[in-house]
Amino acid sequence: MKVTWSRRHVLETDDWSREEIEHVLDTADGMLEVLSRPIRRAPPLRGRTVILFFAEASTRTRVSFELAAKALSADVVNITATGSSVEKGESLLDTARTLEALGGDVLVIRHGSSGAPYFVAQRVGAAVINAGDGAHAHPTQGLVDAYTLRAKLGDLAGKRIVVVGDVLHSRVARSDINALVPLGARVTLSGPPTLLPAAWRCGDLPSGVACEPDVDRALDGADGVIALRLQRERQEAGLLPSIREYARTWGLTEPRVATMRPGAPVMHPGPMNEGVEIDAAVAHGARSLIEEQVTNGVAVRMALLYLLIAGGEPPATPPLTGVV
Amino acid sequence: MKVTWSRRHVLETDDWSREEIEHVLDTADGMLEVLSRPIRRAPPLRGRTVILFFAEASTRTRVSFELAAKALSADVVNITATGSSVEKGESLLDTARTLEALGGDVLVIRHGSSGAPYFVAQRVGAAVINAGDGAHAHPTQGLVDAYTLRAKLGDLAGKRIVVVGDVLHSRVARSDINALVPLGARVTLSGPPTLLPAAWRCGDLPSGVACEPDVDRALDGADGVIALRLQRERQEAGLLPSIREYARTWGLTEPRVATMRPGAPVMHPGPMNEGVEIDAAVAHGARSLIEEQVTNGVAVRMALLYLLIAGGEPPATPPLTGVV
Amino acid sequence: MKVTWSRRHVLETDDWSREEIEHVLDTADGMLEVLSRPIRRAPPLRGRTVILFFAEASTRTRVSFELAAKALSADVVNITATGSSVEKGESLLDTARTLEALGGDVLVIRHGSSGAPYFVAQRVGAAVINAGDGAHAHPTQGLVDAYTLRAKLGDLAGKRIVVVGDVLHSRVARSDINALVPLGARVTLSGPPTLLPAAWRCGDLPSGVACEPDVDRALDGADGVIALRLQRERQEAGLLPSIREYARTWGLTEPRVATMRPGAPVMHPGPMNEGVEIDAAVAHGARSLIEEQVTNGVAVRMALLYLLIAGGEPPATPPLTGVV
Repeated sequence: MKVTWSRRHVLETDDWSREEIEHVLDTADGMLEVLSRPIRRAPPLRGRTVILFFAEASTRTRVSFELAAKALSADVVNITATGSSVEKGESLLDTARTLEALGGDVLVIRHGSSGAPYFVAQRVGAAVINAGDGAHAHPTQGLVDAYTLRAKLGDLAGKRIVVVGDVLHSRVARSDINALVPLGARVTLSGPPTLLPAAWRCGDLPSGVACEPDVDRALDGADGVIALRLQRERQEAGLLPSIREYARTWGLTEPRVATMRPGAPVMHPGPMNEGVEIDAAVAHGARSLIEEQVTNGVAVRMALLYLLIAGGEPPATPPLTGVV
Repeated sequence: MKVTWSRRHVLETDDWSREEIEHVLDTADGMLEVLSRPIRRAPPLRGRTVILFFAEASTRTRVSFELAAKALSADVVNITATGSSVEKGESLLDTARTLEALGGDVLVIRHGSSGAPYFVAQRVGAAVINAGDGAHAHPTQGLVDAYTLRAKLGDLAGKRIVVVGDVLHSRVARSDINALVPLGARVTLSGPPTLLPAAWRCGDLPSGVACEPDVDRALDGADGVIALRLQRERQEAGLLPSIREYARTWGLTEPRVATMRPGAPVMHPGPMNEGVEIDAAVAHGARSLIEEQVTNGVAVRMALLYLLIAGGEPPATPPLTGVV
Repeated sequence: MKVTWSRRHVLETDDWSREEIEHVLDTADGMLEVLSRPIRRAPPLRGRTVILFFAEASTRTRVSFELAAKALSADVVNITATGSSVEKGESLLDTARTLEALGGDVLVIRHGSSGAPYFVAQRVGAAVINAGDGAHAHPTQGLVDAYTLRAKLGDLAGKRIVVVGDVLHSRVARSDINALVPLGARVTLSGPPTLLPAAWRCGDLPSGVACEPDVDRALDGADGVIALRLQRERQEAGLLPSIREYARTWGLTEPRVATMRPGAPVMHPGPMNEGVEIDAAVAHGARSLIEEQVTNGVAVRMALLYLLIAGGEPPATPPLTGVV
């Protein structure tokens, strides 16, 4: 079936169809092939401009977008809150309008306020990609995780993926659910009850999502697990007894991950607190797909940039070849 | 008439002839055409290096130069005071000499000290562009404003342009005068008398420039207006009764701009304090050329980079075409 | 003799053979030719990614690597400690592994801790270049200095080069020794005895290295001198009587450098404290190669990037030509 791509922005995948998500993942397959070439570069976005506006610290997501854009021959401009007009008190909207008027085809926005990319997307003509907004969403990470799991497990229909950790404050957890459930996966949330959303604690869960605070029970027979980064400041806020207690009760150890199905993968969006939410032996063990997530992240972001700018032609057609 | 371009630097346009200014604006026309292409890129500065040294915060000017350089296929290197050897106490001159020895063809300098780009230009062989020096000058903004007004109004001879706001501290006001008056425009300065230069308050005005503190009288029948950004710290310094008082007395409101000639444009160098020096309805209204200023800014800076490096051949000749 | 290049990293040249060092310098000759072309760009690293991870402030070294990589058509990504995941407490190793998984072919690392690049190099597959680690080493600067001296003096066998200043804390001094001595040069260290390594003060010096605290005696008849940057905080630490005393006793003045052999060059890795370790008249005088060091720095870093990625083919062969 031919999918007609009609998204103008990537804000969150909560209203995306299975076909749309699969189209992105299929397109990313072609992009991963570009990245495997001796010259990792294709020409389709030559002369186009991708502006990375990161109002919060980031290495992997920013660099992932930068390399994705460059691999498609786009020009990339970096803007951080420090050293920009944001220091002069310019509003987010004025900054975004200016970046569009400067010629930005895509604005990639990371912002501490939930909803900031939506606010911008409603008011500018450029395409907007949400690279993480507050505790709300991180849709490109959700798509990366879906891509990485699909590459390992094949069709995700009926597969059970555990997401363990600080679900309450995690934009990754939310976006993982919104990318995985449409593909047929079931998501089991685990972690301290104080770090689960209040509504979910009471059983009012989204379709396809279950809760199991006991991580041992959650992992038993699971098809994969995604550990979330524990923000150490949660302990100071009284939401956790101690980091040590967290690690003992919910940390991914080798005995724990061994109860999953054979070969079931372990993932983490990074940066990791090794010894807290994940043991070093697991993070770097045979089940770990953590480095694959990083590599796949470039391919998935290439797919999104390509689809937003070049408009949804099938992947791996002439636009991905030619003199670079 | 064929203009022979002989400028080695762009420090301020106060000693530029009408022909030189027009040559830049004519060249920018060709650059705007490059920016309108599907692939917004031309090859003339391939293998050349433009170094952006911004010792003060900036988004739009820095990004404008960066995109201008990249659209002409130059390499761009960004240096900010933070994270550079300037933190180690290296002198401006040593930094500039090093940047030249590294291969910089053009040094674009923003600096808090008036005159800093002149100081550098006298001592290095590379071309220097002043991207804003203290309260002194911002010549590329002046040229952008002249370009934008000429594109809207045609020949500027006899046209009356109001510049309203904190003229005393504004490098933009000074550079607007120095770009507009040689083209035959008359400039009327308006704003609180405390924010006009002392000499000018007493009537000792440059040729082509008039003063009219009453903004309503200044705007009546004008051909265009440029609002300046109000630095909120001026109030703390006792130069203003209050921000609210400023907005009521000198802010650009719809009734005020309606007294200009029909279609007379409204401009602002950004970033704006909406509701202070300019109302949102005016900033985003039919007369506003504020986004055009941003877009034109890239074209004018392309023209300047091109002329400084490639030496003043006529615009839109073969150097702007070819494989990119 | 054909040299087979087999280095995977550039950590320090203390275990490099004369042939390896000469192969880098010979390769840099070809790179300097690329930099002298009207279009300063060659294609061999197109589609390759060089990641600059600078956890300490730098202008010249970072920009030198950036321009070197771009001149060979590589993509460059800049990461500083500020604004990166390092702010979130991510370990150096996790950052490095992530950068490799993102596609980095070469990681250029500057870090405040001695040994950091070694630690990373042992654990990632990407090539690692040490761009300065604590007080330990700065091998690319050592190679730049060797290249610059060889270009001026020819064969360095038997040549006597003085290194004057804070040898104790200088990674440049150490790397200069490790690049110059294998080429047959003799290095005389001079400076305050408190700023010489304790072991060396007692006479236990590496082969090819001598000590002469009296700078006048050290310079007499020398073939060249490298002044080191004086860190002003050394005085506060009680290692120096005063900056003025230092300048008078060890600063490079015109009379002092005049006692070297005719034409013997003066160098400094920058940034300089003019009037302290070197007088302005010397820094900008006829013997000064300080700007040549900067220019050569780009060529030497091009050579290293090229050899690490493209694997040691002879210089100036087809990889350095072609459409760019």
